[in-house]
Amino acid sequence: MTPPYPVHLSRYEDGRLKDFYDELAPEEPLEIRVEGQSIAVVMRTPGHDRELAAGFLLSEGIIKGPRDLFDITTCVAAGTMGKGNAVDVALAQPASFDVSKFSRHVMTSASCGICSKTSIETALRRHKPIPPGLQIDPAVVLTLPRKLARRQETFQRTGGLHACALFTPEGRLLELREDIGRHNALDKLLGWALLEKMLPLSNCLLLLSGRTSFEMMQKAYSAGVPIVAAISAPSSLAVEFARDSGQTLAGFVRGKTMNVYSGPERFSA
Amino acid sequence: MTPPYPVHLSRYEDGRLKDFYDELAPEEPLEIRVEGQSIAVVMRTPGHDRELAAGFLLSEGIIKGPRDLFDITTCVAAGTMGKGNAVDVALAQPASFDVSKFSRHVMTSASCGICSKTSIETALRRHKPIPPGLQIDPAVVLTLPRKLARRQETFQRTGGLHACALFTPEGRLLELREDIGRHNALDKLLGWALLEKMLPLSNCLLLLSGRTSFEMMQKAYSAGVPIVAAISAPSSLAVEFARDSGQTLAGFVRGKTMNVYSGPERFSA
Repeated sequence: MTPPYPVHLSRYEDGRLKDFYDELAPEEPLEIRVEGQSIAVVMRTPGHDRELAAGFLLSEGIIKGPRDLFDITTCVAAGTMGKGNAVDVALAQPASFDVSKFSRHVMTSASCGICSKTSIETALRRHKPIPPGLQIDPAVVLTLPRKLARRQETFQRTGGLHACALFTPEGRLLELREDIGRHNALDKLLGWALLEKMLPLSNCLLLLSGRTSFEMMQKAYSAGVPIVAAISAPSSLAVEFARDSGQTLAGFVRGKTMNVYSGPERFSA
Repeated sequence: MTPPYPVHLSRYEDGRLKDFYDELAPEEPLEIRVEGQSIAVVMRTPGHDRELAAGFLLSEGIIKGPRDLFDITTCVAAGTMGKGNAVDVALAQPASFDVSKFSRHVMTSASCGICSKTSIETALRRHKPIPPGLQIDPAVVLTLPRKLARRQETFQRTGGLHACALFTPEGRLLELREDIGRHNALDKLLGWALLEKMLPLSNCLLLLSGRTSFEMMQKAYSAGVPIVAAISAPSSLAVEFARDSGQTLAGFVRGKTMNVYSGPERFSA
């Protein structure tokens, strides 16, 4: 994990400004290239950049699994984004990738919550449902936020990072990723699973430190995650997506209670 | 404000699942078109869509003020995004807008924290500093989070919305916007100010309900906001941006204290 970024500042306390020292969550741009062509610039916390690129391409539908990848390399030379802030993805079948088709669908921009047109159209059509099968004791789910918090190293120092983690049905933490952007944190985690050849994640539960939007559900779906649980609220479209895709979605997992918005049959008390 | 989205769900409590009813933050796609050409799809909370489009074009540098706008219309016909989920912006000088130039710079995608290449390059070059002049009593700033919370109607019901608000130097709330995406909330607020012919906002303080990223600072800069205060942490690049642009940036505005990362000279106790 990237070390926090040290900063000198003024702290207003007892009616006056005093010199102070703190640590911030690092944020830098990362340019993601496919076959040498820039397809996206993401504001992310440096670290696990190859996994971020893999997860990003998975949720964009450019790759489906590790076999679609030839290699992911970090560009060491200083580019316009600064040293080390670019990754280049080489595909197993480069001829199948048409950057002009990709950019035509997603010519878009600088706002959080921006979505490619293709992914929206995907949202509005019916999904092949994720198979039932996985069963989890809901009492186990209630124990997961504490396990997440215990592993959230950087957040505890900077207060500025989102986290997400994959768990086994028994509640064992498999891996955790943190990032200043919650979409990046999830791309890094799912990219890790992809590179570890664990897809589809039919036997895993995904825990999110924050809220659940449509795009978070869509990313989880692209990796075959049957159960998504979050510490905060879902959006309306996240719930609609989950009900259509056959995913279980829980929110407000806090203390001894949680809300189950979709797929409660996977929770067998 | 859009009414919350009602939902039936199961609540896990006392070791079993019970029927439950709750309200969610609404999330729907909005397609933003300029001169009939799609430039972005944003996942947003419906409402204030014209302001969202105006603020988005402002922070993208496509417009600088109300004089660059001819009209913004909501498309009533059902398109691929669903009924009412598109706005079309007509420019005062349509010949000056080159969509191919725009899309070439920002051919990007579905992740939160995605940034246009132009805006990153902007981040890495020096800015014309926002002039000094505005002075605010820091004790006034500490009173603002309560005023924001009192007006945050939807959040109190759904727990799922970000808010931001503009205040006068005396601490009077001018306007507030909420959205499921924090970038959208800020675009709506700054778009409101633009349509009200209030730009540049040289005499305003901006308060954010969450964290401050580079892009939030960049948006505030595009509207000429000299002071940004937030309830949570800034990122490293937000602080670097503020120090370069001459903006005052405060974070962790909580109770009787706050941290001032940049421009403390605007706070005269």
